[in-house]
Amino acid sequence: MNYCSHCGARTEVRIPDGDNRARHCCPECGTIHYQNPKIVAGCLAECDDRILLCRRGIEPRHGLWTLPAGYMENGESVEQAAARETWEEARARVEIGPLLAMYSIPHIAQVYMLFRARLPEPDFAPGPESLDVRLFTRDEVPWDELAFPVIDRTLRGYFQSSDTLQVGTLKPITPAS
Amino acid sequence: MNYCSHCGARTEVRIPDGDNRARHCCPECGTIHYQNPKIVAGCLAECDDRILLCRRGIEPRHGLWTLPAGYMENGESVEQAAARETWEEARARVEIGPLLAMYSIPHIAQVYMLFRARLPEPDFAPGPESLDVRLFTRDEVPWDELAFPVIDRTLRGYFQSSDTLQVGTLKPITPAS
Repeated sequence: MNYCSHCGARTEVRIPDGDNRARHCCPECGTIHYQNPKIVAGCLAECDDRILLCRRGIEPRHGLWTLPAGYMENGESVEQAAARETWEEARARVEIGPLLAMYSIPHIAQVYMLFRARLPEPDFAPGPESLDVRLFTRDEVPWDELAFPVIDRTLRGYFQSSDTLQVGTLKPITPAS
Repeated sequence: MNYCSHCGARTEVRIPDGDNRARHCCPECGTIHYQNPKIVAGCLAECDDRILLCRRGIEPRHGLWTLPAGYMENGESVEQAAARETWEEARARVEIGPLLAMYSIPHIAQVYMLFRARLPEPDFAPGPESLDVRLFTRDEVPWDELAFPVIDRTLRGYFQSSDTLQVGTLKPITPAS
């Protein structure tokens, strides 16, 4: 951030009075520009004994597999965001069920919120940001081609105990020593 | 938003190519300024058979009672945010437990995430944004002086079943007909 989105003046980074964190502040109009984590909402959709994965058609992790998920928008609930992303990425109309996983990823300021969902019919197709969409049994999951650690973690937790809410924090991956 | 925070040019509101929502876009540098919901993290801290509430010393709802909670910051987990807010508002060091409630509030673009927590000792004091902090038994809760509907809903759910994860969406309050 370089300029105040309210008045257009150059912003400066400083700790506002009564605060304890550096913020982008406008010296002209006084606006403090807070930056906060984003919610990534999505689902693990079940169709009989198989689950729905999308192969990413965009960066990052182009060509790798993921659960349908994306940034929650203003004006919607987390469940609505999860269903919308599933439509956009997998052209699948799902019934959102219970919360399955809530993972904080502090180093990228994201919070994943993934629900179990029901896909009543095997009716789906790649959306504009997907190369492919498929149903996988547990044994068929492409474990070595998953896009993100949070997806790997969520899938492993789900196959261990699909009824258990997963809550945790993911740290950056450090090179193996 | 009036100006691009990246280059300082006047922004315009339009639907970007490949998108389906109006965004603040910069015609000069091409930056799209997304706006997303914020997470409000907090806790319901238990000390024996009593729970911790704060009396708000700031607007909105100055003078009314609430659970310690506030906006999650970049670089922290939801649990860390909940513990930090509890320190800032109630000067209480809590042990964060399981997720108790996750409520979407679409009309104000907030998602509340409230945890059960343990307050090992009745050691607390009002932080700079609180007028008072107290422990209440169920019968003592000031039901008519709670600050926000989400707090009322969470407390009622908790006293019905403290082990049940509450997940839901809150709508605007409409005047009684």
